[in-house]
Amino acid sequence: MPESSAPDARPAVVLLSGGLDSATVLAVARSQGFACHCLSFDYGQRHQVELAAAARVADALGAATHRTASIDLRAFGGSALTDDALDVPKDRDEAAMSADIPVTYVPARNTIFLSYALALAEVLGSTDLFIGVNAVDYSGYPDCRPEFIASFERTANLATKAGVEAAEADPHLRVHAPLMDLTKVQIIGLGLEHGVDYALTHSCYDPVDDAACGRCDSCRLRSKAFGELGRRDPALGPAPKPGNWGCGG
Amino acid sequence: MPESSAPDARPAVVLLSGGLDSATVLAVARSQGFACHCLSFDYGQRHQVELAAAARVADALGAATHRTASIDLRAFGGSALTDDALDVPKDRDEAAMSADIPVTYVPARNTIFLSYALALAEVLGSTDLFIGVNAVDYSGYPDCRPEFIASFERTANLATKAGVEAAEADPHLRVHAPLMDLTKVQIIGLGLEHGVDYALTHSCYDPVDDAACGRCDSCRLRSKAFGELGRRDPALGPAPKPGNWGCGG
Repeated sequence: MPESSAPDARPAVVLLSGGLDSATVLAVARSQGFACHCLSFDYGQRHQVELAAAARVADALGAATHRTASIDLRAFGGSALTDDALDVPKDRDEAAMSADIPVTYVPARNTIFLSYALALAEVLGSTDLFIGVNAVDYSGYPDCRPEFIASFERTANLATKAGVEAAEADPHLRVHAPLMDLTKVQIIGLGLEHGVDYALTHSCYDPVDDAACGRCDSCRLRSKAFGELGRRDPALGPAPKPGNWGCGG
Repeated sequence: MPESSAPDARPAVVLLSGGLDSATVLAVARSQGFACHCLSFDYGQRHQVELAAAARVADALGAATHRTASIDLRAFGGSALTDDALDVPKDRDEAAMSADIPVTYVPARNTIFLSYALALAEVLGSTDLFIGVNAVDYSGYPDCRPEFIASFERTANLATKAGVEAAEADPHLRVHAPLMDLTKVQIIGLGLEHGVDYALTHSCYDPVDDAACGRCDSCRLRSKAFGELGRRDPALGPAPKPGNWGCGG
């Protein structure tokens, strides 16, 4: 059982997708003593199973609250994650993944997600937002870069009542991106240190019967990183047993 | 009938609330030759009638398209515009309006709205966003100030594929706020020059039977400005005729 937050714990808003990275971020925020208010998004993504994963992760890691906001990105189209007419790329090697901005790009996604987090932070009286972006494996998402996060933080400090009321010295509101400079292997190591059960997480772009496909860019990055730690990605289920193909006694 | 856009007109995204200010902005953007793609929001506001006004205004001013995105601010609470348990202030003088951040504040509203506009701009291949914020009558909304708009523009140029692909010289994407330094009287004058029919617009915070209440901060600011131009606000309907109280002939 996770420890509950201290009564005087400062509130933080944690963006939680249900994937490996944001689960790690929640564990880090909890370890820093924050009462974590998690925010997930239902944005018409194909992989609704990740929202169930977010709820499991929030519960397992002792979040104070967990909200899912419905947002309407589908009207804008333009991404394989939200547009059924496009195919998710499979079996690409890392060179292909990093060569261009992927078809799975959702326009302005982190800008929109951080805007909602800012709204919730203001209502809760929180000055700390956490997001699991990462510049090492960002593979072409411009809104995962440190310069974007720093710029959003400056904008957020100008956008809110709290920002106006704060002294002009330090930025009042912080956008924490604790995974920014970590490799996937380092992220998983950090999460394991903080008790994340990665079997609860879900990162697949194209799940089959709610199970990770094992072949999309996201599955391949995870699987490779667990392999470097000498582990099998627990989201892929138990390893197949050689010889156990139902052909004998 | 408004002229339609030239076939080679550059696309712009125009945030359109159905109110006086954004109608004026749409007229200004049209006059600059943009093909205007208007974006309105259904965010659980009490005054749904403003969405009908937005559709009328978009049509009357020759918008290329008009979309309404549903967004879920009500889950966050904290504002009289979205929370039925709070009262909209009435009959306040201008000193009271400007004394504090009003109870009608929606957390992070313009940050969220501009984020959606950015997403639509990216899908449309547009590099021009228009918003009707105004620092003269902003009465305490921090996200109506020029420093907020400038900061959002910088963030937007870091958030998108277009920003990444653009040369590092000029900002690629512009957030236009053509009303920023205008008084309400000047805004109305500008709109009248560009053919805005203000009878189609709706700004009231607390309409009664879809009609402007005439008493909330927004109605009072409009009404006073039309008065200074020697006009009656057309959104208030025909002026009552003295003596015509149904008591004779």
